Amino acid sequence: MDGKYPFTILLNDYFMTIVIIGSGNVATHLALALARAEIYIPQVFSRNILHAKQLASRVGAEPIDNLKDLSLDADLYLISVADASIEEVVQKMPLVKGVVAHTAASVGMSVLSRFSHFGVFYPFQTFTKEKTLNFKEIPLLLEANGDNTLKLLKSVGDSISDKVQESNESKRMALHLAAVFACNFVNHLYTLADELLADSGLKFEILAPLIRETTEKALSMHPKLAQTGPAHRADTNVMASHLKSLKEGTVEYKIYQLLSQSIMER
Amino acid sequence: MDGKYPFTILLNDYFMTIVIIGSGNVATHLALALARAEIYIPQVFSRNILHAKQLASRVGAEPIDNLKDLSLDADLYLISVADASIEEVVQKMPLVKGVVAHTAASVGMSVLSRFSHFGVFYPFQTFTKEKTLNFKEIPLLLEANGDNTLKLLKSVGDSISDKVQESNESKRMALHLAAVFACNFVNHLYTLADELLADSGLKFEILAPLIRETTEKALSMHPKLAQTGPAHRADTNVMASHLKSLKEGTVEYKIYQLLSQSIMER
Repeated sequence: MDGKYPFTILLNDYFMTIVIIGSGNVATHLALALARAEIYIPQVFSRNILHAKQLASRVGAEPIDNLKDLSLDADLYLISVADASIEEVVQKMPLVKGVVAHTAASVGMSVLSRFSHFGVFYPFQTFTKEKTLNFKEIPLLLEANGDNTLKLLKSVGDSISDKVQESNESKRMALHLAAVFACNFVNHLYTLADELLADSGLKFEILAPLIRETTEKALSMHPKLAQTGPAHRADTNVMASHLKSLKEGTVEYKIYQLLSQSIMER
Repeated sequence: MDGKYPFTILLNDYFMTIVIIGSGNVATHLALALARAEIYIPQVFSRNILHAKQLASRVGAEPIDNLKDLSLDADLYLISVADASIEEVVQKMPLVKGVVAHTAASVGMSVLSRFSHFGVFYPFQTFTKEKTLNFKEIPLLLEANGDNTLKLLKSVGDSISDKVQESNESKRMALHLAAVFACNFVNHLYTLADELLADSGLKFEILAPLIRETTEKALSMHPKLAQTGPAHRADTNVMASHLKSLKEGTVEYKIYQLLSQSIMER
């Protein structure tokens, strides 16, 4: 407690320091949440020094753009870069003694196995840079190659989220796949709905009450019980007239047909 | 103003009386909203007298199960039955002088043309019987075969919703089609996500923060700009691994492929 790190807090009997590797959406939200929890972030790395500076200045860190400059005595190195870049980052990093964890949904923990202590620190949410999030509500899925490493990740996780849970690779992959359906594909259906409305001079906003109610209904009564619509009641007249207006061969037509079929099969 | 209808309010200089024909989700929510607005509902019709009684008792109306018993002097008859039953109801109704309107998304107004005054009174929302809704927020789309009829429907609409708008058949159909994408299909994707999680021993609830954020993001920043995920960044590695875990030939596999393709094309 020499006062060197004035903003750190005591976790597990010592001061925690976390280096952030990356400056994208997830790195930004994580760094800000950690800084709000008064965890000390000595460095932010980005290949682009301007991006490193931008995020570093928001969390009181030193910006670096060369992994050779990485501090060697941090407790945790959070790698939050594009999936395809993780391996390259790992190879360029010095062999640090601290824990190294990545935040990716779809990358195995073993990519980090050249380090002694490693794991996964996966925040399960869709991140947008400009949009503030209540991190406390975000499920954080943890994996580690040892009990102490898991304990350290859990300490960090608990400081920013109320929903920390141990996980494993197959659960994380299943969760990510489910998220593609419930988030990415859902958002794309909103985009298609918007295009269909635009063709008739209507604005997306008219869907807002319906979209909010659909979401709340699914969350409060379970989606299977909340299903409604022409396919659910096997109303072939309405479905035929919808398909007619969508025009055969278009992707909207195929999506309408396939999703209706899937609803009817259930 | 003879005091015969103690609960009515003055709309356009006279007391409004509305007969509800139907006892399903939409009929129930409409009748309750109208009753809350202190509009007098003399009768509720249902083919099933028990259903008629159930709803009638909640709005102070007389339950009937024979259209021959329909009151002849109501101002408005709201037909809120299954699409396929509208024509039969219309044929069995006496030739009333008041306005006759249906609440269906996909049925043309002309089905009501044996009456002198007719129209459409379409509340754009997904209804569940047990779930209370804030009707003020629900868009109400109106069509009528004459100005005075439209005026009457607008008076009634304004008494229960802040979002009343004149519409036409093609707009109503476009809106319903968009709703199938943004509500029915979205809910089905939630169902599929739930099944994928269940296979790995995970609960649907873990998706709640993600689903809420996806919805709010789409509504606040427009869905096209809010798109994220493997298909959006053309991450073929992740997509291939997801498809592998879904197994070729399953409907989930086809949906994953088709929606990813549609996202990539945009």
